[in-house]
Amino acid sequence: MGGDNAPGAIVRGGVDAALGLEDVKVFLVGRKDTIEAEFVKYPPALFQQVQAAIADGRIEVVHAPDVAEMDDAPAKAVRAKRDCSINVAMRLVKAGKADCFVSAGNSGAVSASAMFTLGRIRGVDRPAIATVLPTRLPRRPLLLLDAGANMDCHPEWLVQFAVMGSAYSHAVLNRTTPLVGLLSIGTEDCKGNDLTKSAFPMLKRVDTIDFRGNVEGHDLFQGQTDVVVCDGFVGNVVLKTTESVCHAMGYWMKREFRGNFWRTLGSLLLLGAFKAIKRQVDPEIYGGAPLLGVPGAVVIAHGSSSAKAIYHAIKAGVTGAKNDMTGEISRRIADYELQKKTEEEQKQAEAAAAEALA
Amino acid sequence: MGGDNAPGAIVRGGVDAALGLEDVKVFLVGRKDTIEAEFVKYPPALFQQVQAAIADGRIEVVHAPDVAEMDDAPAKAVRAKRDCSINVAMRLVKAGKADCFVSAGNSGAVSASAMFTLGRIRGVDRPAIATVLPTRLPRRPLLLLDAGANMDCHPEWLVQFAVMGSAYSHAVLNRTTPLVGLLSIGTEDCKGNDLTKSAFPMLKRVDTIDFRGNVEGHDLFQGQTDVVVCDGFVGNVVLKTTESVCHAMGYWMKREFRGNFWRTLGSLLLLGAFKAIKRQVDPEIYGGAPLLGVPGAVVIAHGSSSAKAIYHAIKAGVTGAKNDMTGEISRRIADYELQKKTEEEQKQAEAAAAEALA
Repeated sequence: MGGDNAPGAIVRGGVDAALGLEDVKVFLVGRKDTIEAEFVKYPPALFQQVQAAIADGRIEVVHAPDVAEMDDAPAKAVRAKRDCSINVAMRLVKAGKADCFVSAGNSGAVSASAMFTLGRIRGVDRPAIATVLPTRLPRRPLLLLDAGANMDCHPEWLVQFAVMGSAYSHAVLNRTTPLVGLLSIGTEDCKGNDLTKSAFPMLKRVDTIDFRGNVEGHDLFQGQTDVVVCDGFVGNVVLKTTESVCHAMGYWMKREFRGNFWRTLGSLLLLGAFKAIKRQVDPEIYGGAPLLGVPGAVVIAHGSSSAKAIYHAIKAGVTGAKNDMTGEISRRIADYELQKKTEEEQKQAEAAAAEALA
Repeated sequence: MGGDNAPGAIVRGGVDAALGLEDVKVFLVGRKDTIEAEFVKYPPALFQQVQAAIADGRIEVVHAPDVAEMDDAPAKAVRAKRDCSINVAMRLVKAGKADCFVSAGNSGAVSASAMFTLGRIRGVDRPAIATVLPTRLPRRPLLLLDAGANMDCHPEWLVQFAVMGSAYSHAVLNRTTPLVGLLSIGTEDCKGNDLTKSAFPMLKRVDTIDFRGNVEGHDLFQGQTDVVVCDGFVGNVVLKTTESVCHAMGYWMKREFRGNFWRTLGSLLLLGAFKAIKRQVDPEIYGGAPLLGVPGAVVIAHGSSSAKAIYHAIKAGVTGAKNDMTGEISRRIADYELQKKTEEEQKQAEAAAAEALA
């Protein structure tokens, strides 16, 4: 029920995933009559396929009587309305009936519902929204987190983001040893604001990640780093700025290309090239953002998601669940917790020894 | 002496400005022999023009024995080396011999030297680096500040940035009533981090600016806002991300356009269109960033500035000085201070009246 193009695009994306992805069952959660009214709009062939999928259980419509209103406080809305569609869908994951959750609803509402229903992975203070961004290298996307779940962060949270991001990059994006960067305003160790300057030495000490120091905005799309951590305010601004620049470039090109006959011809000759670029950077393919730190594969799709974007978000969620992203994150966070505990004990032992000597 | 392409590009940009801009005299400040060695490299005709310009005073080489080393702490370097080129050039402004200052050196060093030599405009807590960014609308660039002078900001500083940015936009960028936005992660009043949530109501109260609320990364290049304020960490990240996206887009296009004969032909037909776009968004033209809040027209050019970028940075500085940007900022900051004082007095008077009644 969530997203700018709901329910049409959301239902259709779910239908496409159920029919198109192998070995996938899709629960469509929301007002039953609203969802079923979408099916009726489909061409007869597709309508029959949907009916067949419902009959053999590949599609299941799950009724949720309420919809969380997004007007003011989304986190409060999901707490107040126990049976809103986000909560009902999240409970399917909690109950083990569904392996992953996808919504194009408000990210604050989804995060709150996930925390409320699923809880957090042990050792995680705050779940973070991770986004996958394309880089110059086709098979080396960048995972940027937090992209908007936590505005004002403690340095320790950034460290946990780095550990969780590494786990996700390893389990889902196939990076054997993901390289981790801290988003800052210079590559020198000392550069940054209070938050990054505190987080830097803490990140350097973590055994389970391969921390490569500060990265700048310049470096984001170079394909040299796999995981970049920052607070959710900065991450969200980066994400939206990136989209904004791409739109502005597209706008400038369209305007200039209409200049005269030769330019129009030129742009037609380049149509294939532009399509190839679009495929590489398409936010509809990259748009599903996993929420890391909750015990379940939760994917937040862009609010303006089309059916195609929902299809790809479901695909991302399925991959995350199949590759046990939650297990990988739990293990790495546990290792990190153990390292912290060991260091703490060592420090205490040293202090005790020093005291005994004195 | 500062910048990646120093001294060649810097000297040449200064020479081009002295010869190309009307009614402009350029002081070239640095090691005299290094600067003069550049002139010798020029083709004979240009060399003679330079000699003629030196003879009639349009170019003056000012010797500065030291260069601030940028390795670790640039702010310290300019304090330690009194006669480094940045300080010597800044003193020309202080003494009234020069109307504006331009450097492609480290922005921290320039800001520190400006504060140290020129001081601050009365009422300004922290000077801010403002950058001019192109938007969809050709004649409506966006002024984003702070772009990197102040990492961790107080809300009050953001308010001063808004007042200074409005003054600059009015005086130099010809906006009669500049619209001001606060960079945040949602357009709703309540969205943001601690800093923006505190700054929001303060910005709303200022009489001398036209505050239009939160703007998102999405909105930056739409041409709907004239001045956008944020802390220097976020501003710097936005700026570098923008550059990074543009570079990545250029890279993807170049790669795809080489695909085959027809694509190459297409890209040749569009050469004019791409050049037109480049002219609009060229960081070499937009690259000069004024430092607002010091009593003098100080422009920080990009570290990687070419001669053309230096030429345009000088042009920006000259425009700033001619349009009395410093005076405009001083007046608006004074008005803002007066408003604060009046409100404070009113509050005290009300409190006194309430007490008298009680």
